[in-house]
Amino acid sequence: MDHILGEVIIIRALEQRILAEGQILPGEVLKVGSFLNQQIDTVLLKEIGGEIARLFSCNNVTKVLTIEASGIAIACAAGIAMGVPVVFAKKHSTSNLSGDVLSTEVFSYTHQQTYKVVVPSDYISSEDTVLIVDDFLAKGNALKGLIEIVEKAGAGLAGCAIAIEKGFQGGGDSLRAKGIRVESLAIIDKMTDDSLEFRPQSV
Amino acid sequence: MDHILGEVIIIRALEQRILAEGQILPGEVLKVGSFLNQQIDTVLLKEIGGEIARLFSCNNVTKVLTIEASGIAIACAAGIAMGVPVVFAKKHSTSNLSGDVLSTEVFSYTHQQTYKVVVPSDYISSEDTVLIVDDFLAKGNALKGLIEIVEKAGAGLAGCAIAIEKGFQGGGDSLRAKGIRVESLAIIDKMTDDSLEFRPQSV
Repeated sequence: MDHILGEVIIIRALEQRILAEGQILPGEVLKVGSFLNQQIDTVLLKEIGGEIARLFSCNNVTKVLTIEASGIAIACAAGIAMGVPVVFAKKHSTSNLSGDVLSTEVFSYTHQQTYKVVVPSDYISSEDTVLIVDDFLAKGNALKGLIEIVEKAGAGLAGCAIAIEKGFQGGGDSLRAKGIRVESLAIIDKMTDDSLEFRPQSV
Repeated sequence: MDHILGEVIIIRALEQRILAEGQILPGEVLKVGSFLNQQIDTVLLKEIGGEIARLFSCNNVTKVLTIEASGIAIACAAGIAMGVPVVFAKKHSTSNLSGDVLSTEVFSYTHQQTYKVVVPSDYISSEDTVLIVDDFLAKGNALKGLIEIVEKAGAGLAGCAIAIEKGFQGGGDSLRAKGIRVESLAIIDKMTDDSLEFRPQSV
């Protein structure tokens, strides 16, 4: 009973926080900079990490994979809770990068540009079971890029764990339809200029 | 005795890891991507966060401030250990950013360019005592920018906590000479193409 109660509490805590502090901006943007994105409530962050670890506890996850920059916090909280390393994909190659890489291209609707997503091939191998973690899921382009990187590495995919899914943008359900396990702690099914509606979740 | 022993262990663990896995690249670059930078050993990360919390436990820190992207992991580990929010400065304004901001300019030697560092002014106030956290300290330009942001906010500065300081590049000692408390878990005083020398640290 205890962990079911824990799950209800973290989902409700996140939903309440989105309602209280989320800002709806033009272009279907939900800004949660005050507690998750640019300022991070570390008490909530630790809870989110613990909940992700619980959801995927039976999957023998060996690596958490995310994409810079705003996914790093939640991925690290999940990695700490699971005791496994976190790898983050960089959005372009830097002067610190050398050697073989796994890479793909992702189109960002927020920034209206295509960028290269890169992970050194040393960091994910065919022996890994990877959990992809991100803060937001909208159309799913970033997740699809990360899934492609996991496939290129020949690694197993445990699934995707997300803090906030904008369900009305369809990315999550399209991945679920392909048989990929996608767990989002809060799913927004409707968003207008001044209201939000969450998808009821069974626990 | 216990926490002193803990400090020795974490400093030694980090130094040993740098010696075993760090790669020295041209331009005085030390790459620690395999355990701290792009792939993150979350067991080590949690220890680093706990050690930073211990070092600044008497300072009534209310906020941890870092800069995207590679500082986020260590800042979150420290913020979780201290139970205080983490704020990260962004390297350029994005379409998700609105309202009043605290900003400054920083020159990056790694990327040979000047970028704008931005924090929404809501996230740091004159009532805050800020601990600045970053993964690396070299010439200190990023830290100086973050210190300027803390000053612009009228907040107090507890100091700076760093995982790896390249002592031979002088940034840390120049800040210490100004009376700013800078704690680095590992300080490299000499770096050649194939060797590293750490500064002995009293515990």
